[in-house]
Amino acid sequence: MTKRTLPPRRFIKPSFNFLIEKKRDGQEFTQEEIRYIIDATLDGEMPEHQLAALLMAIFFQQMSAQETAILTEEMMLSGEVIDLSHIAKPKIDKYSTGGVGDKTSLVLVPLAMASGVVVPMMCGVEHDYVIGTLDKLAAIPGFKGHLSIDAFVSQLGKIGGAIVHQDEKLAPADAKFYALRKETGTIPSLPLITGSVLSKKLAEGSEGLVIDVKWGNGSFIKDLEQAKQLARSMTRVGRSMKRRCVALVTDMNQPLGDTVGTSLEVKEAIALLKGEGPEDMKELVLKLGMEIVRLAGVAGSTLSAKQTVQRHLTDGSALEKFKELVKAQGGDVAYIDHPEKFHSAKHIRKLPAPKRGYVHTINAAMIAHGVHLLGAGVTKHGEKPDFSVGVSEIKKVGTQVKQGEPLMMIHYNDEAKLEQALDHFKNAYRLAPKRPTPPPLVVERVA
Amino acid sequence: MTKRTLPPRRFIKPSFNFLIEKKRDGQEFTQEEIRYIIDATLDGEMPEHQLAALLMAIFFQQMSAQETAILTEEMMLSGEVIDLSHIAKPKIDKYSTGGVGDKTSLVLVPLAMASGVVVPMMCGVEHDYVIGTLDKLAAIPGFKGHLSIDAFVSQLGKIGGAIVHQDEKLAPADAKFYALRKETGTIPSLPLITGSVLSKKLAEGSEGLVIDVKWGNGSFIKDLEQAKQLARSMTRVGRSMKRRCVALVTDMNQPLGDTVGTSLEVKEAIALLKGEGPEDMKELVLKLGMEIVRLAGVAGSTLSAKQTVQRHLTDGSALEKFKELVKAQGGDVAYIDHPEKFHSAKHIRKLPAPKRGYVHTINAAMIAHGVHLLGAGVTKHGEKPDFSVGVSEIKKVGTQVKQGEPLMMIHYNDEAKLEQALDHFKNAYRLAPKRPTPPPLVVERVA
Repeated sequence: MTKRTLPPRRFIKPSFNFLIEKKRDGQEFTQEEIRYIIDATLDGEMPEHQLAALLMAIFFQQMSAQETAILTEEMMLSGEVIDLSHIAKPKIDKYSTGGVGDKTSLVLVPLAMASGVVVPMMCGVEHDYVIGTLDKLAAIPGFKGHLSIDAFVSQLGKIGGAIVHQDEKLAPADAKFYALRKETGTIPSLPLITGSVLSKKLAEGSEGLVIDVKWGNGSFIKDLEQAKQLARSMTRVGRSMKRRCVALVTDMNQPLGDTVGTSLEVKEAIALLKGEGPEDMKELVLKLGMEIVRLAGVAGSTLSAKQTVQRHLTDGSALEKFKELVKAQGGDVAYIDHPEKFHSAKHIRKLPAPKRGYVHTINAAMIAHGVHLLGAGVTKHGEKPDFSVGVSEIKKVGTQVKQGEPLMMIHYNDEAKLEQALDHFKNAYRLAPKRPTPPPLVVERVA
Repeated sequence: MTKRTLPPRRFIKPSFNFLIEKKRDGQEFTQEEIRYIIDATLDGEMPEHQLAALLMAIFFQQMSAQETAILTEEMMLSGEVIDLSHIAKPKIDKYSTGGVGDKTSLVLVPLAMASGVVVPMMCGVEHDYVIGTLDKLAAIPGFKGHLSIDAFVSQLGKIGGAIVHQDEKLAPADAKFYALRKETGTIPSLPLITGSVLSKKLAEGSEGLVIDVKWGNGSFIKDLEQAKQLARSMTRVGRSMKRRCVALVTDMNQPLGDTVGTSLEVKEAIALLKGEGPEDMKELVLKLGMEIVRLAGVAGSTLSAKQTVQRHLTDGSALEKFKELVKAQGGDVAYIDHPEKFHSAKHIRKLPAPKRGYVHTINAAMIAHGVHLLGAGVTKHGEKPDFSVGVSEIKKVGTQVKQGEPLMMIHYNDEAKLEQALDHFKNAYRLAPKRPTPPPLVVERVA
């Protein structure tokens, strides 16, 4: 771990008012100004109301590519930066903006490990009702998501991968920014998102990053153009910080895979690690996996990257790596060998199609909200998440259904919760008489 | 005084985040939402960082005419509203956005009183280095700027006018808004300025308001178009609150009158009240005075308004009213009868013209800053203002000067302070070989 060292300064501190007005009027901050803002945020010198006004000014006036890169670097340098240079293998991480039913990381991390890539993955908090990677791993009895930085680095050295919670010693300035952004309507700012995500990701010590920017009704980015801009902003900043970066802009206008729910998704991930599972998840894992092995230099061509990834998915080596990772972090591997051990919900019932037709659209956010209402998430009253609830056998966009045929199966334990959730599930589906064109899964590749 | 009474509500409180995002996305607030924001600001329920973000969102997204009117009314109703209906005479006030060398109120208030109009003037804090009306009156020994609301109303009944400091019981929500705006770069927002000014002015109980919106290098509004917009915004809101309103957009690209400085300006005002004094001040007083008597219904036509105002300026009745007002507020009237009693500065020296030519531009803000440096204002170290310092015999834009001829006379007491101020005075003047077109004093009338 290296700690930030400050160069000697001859910087006369401007007033916070001056800085706010400068950004309000669309001017560009210098490196020293950004560093000062970060420092003053961290040590509490900058009052929250002034930082709030500044964040809103940034929302409206944006930041240039250079400002965003400086912001990212200064936020990263506000805390510890993990040094993995003693590990000889290539170190590549993956980041996703978050999506409903997305169990990619559970498959991708062991797949990359099996392909000879070290994956130092730290996960942040998910948006809205999205069940995060570590929320899912929590369904495996014994699994520990919190590791010390030392234990994290040590595990990376031993088995080549780890999936842990963001350590608060990394990019602490971002934590302060983020807490304020949540309360001031300044979450959806591209430079602030870029700075927030990359400052933490790049502090993990990886040499490269594959980014999955999701757009659509199940993502916090509803607009494709904005998703493309974020992909460009992130790869640009990543490169300016001397990291290899590739971003894929992918579809999140329906849930990924066939399931949404904690244990259900882990079981789907295990199936994928056996070369089985739904096609869309397979495609996404394959494409992201290819990007990882290519960034890592493990594969020199697209073809060899594809072959490498496909081989490790089908020969059981990725599944072995998943078991190694789960075991290293205290999880009971018997659940992976025997997924039937996962506690099932008491009841399963279908969501019947109200009429015949084609699945025209699915509002993924509403599905996620419904699953949350079934009990999948931590509630306001502090109830523990129910790992067993969720939905499965999701009929995807473009599928033809008869009246009464299941649009999906609902796994639930509580009738009252089911009642609440049902509205969301029903309203999430729109059927139409004509077959829609299913949306492309990967819309754009930004390198 | 009437206190706000709330109608019964069936309003479900939205989250502050929702309100911030609503404005951020350019949507219009309802009356209930604005009332809730004001209430929550007053009782501290709305955290400062969220209000700060909201203010910045308003800066960028503006408010509609209706929203601005509601904001103004709700801010006004956040405190006491003075009821002057027991006073039979018309009650008209004047508001100015503030300018360098502007001693209009000292002349205009007694002039309106002499014309049969009651003027309930409460003055706010001035911007930057502008010497406010009450700062000037403080040069008259004994003068009290702070009156209780009861004493204020009683004096209005007795002599028809008063010039006092804003009472903190009026529009207390604005005080909270304003304190935050000062620290968050959100002062120059037209709807916020409108709400801030009018909520206080209309709580004073006047039936009408004449507004002097100044634009130029000595105003906080540098842009003519913005000044016109503010004039329109204010008169529109005033009318929607059933007050008679007229605004003049006037020039503040050079100091008004011949003097800048506390006692110097009071003496100039006394001269004006005797029908003497510089032409630009005479014109401004006349034009604003005509608006007041017309709004008051004292004069039915432009001609009769002009005659009324001119008569009271020349026949000594305005001067008498000024003495009455000063006396009622505890001031020593001998200073008005004998202006030579005002303490003079120890030294007077000229600011020589560096070359021959015409005065092309004068930066009024720099003049004000220079006079402040001479000691005219309250300093950071808490020194009391020096009433005697300032500048006089200011050569105005368009005047021809020879090399070495005085551009103005500097009244000072301290050589060190003079040194600092001199730079500002020198840099404030630009001479040119060709005579410039002097700017029109009144640019637009908005009724």
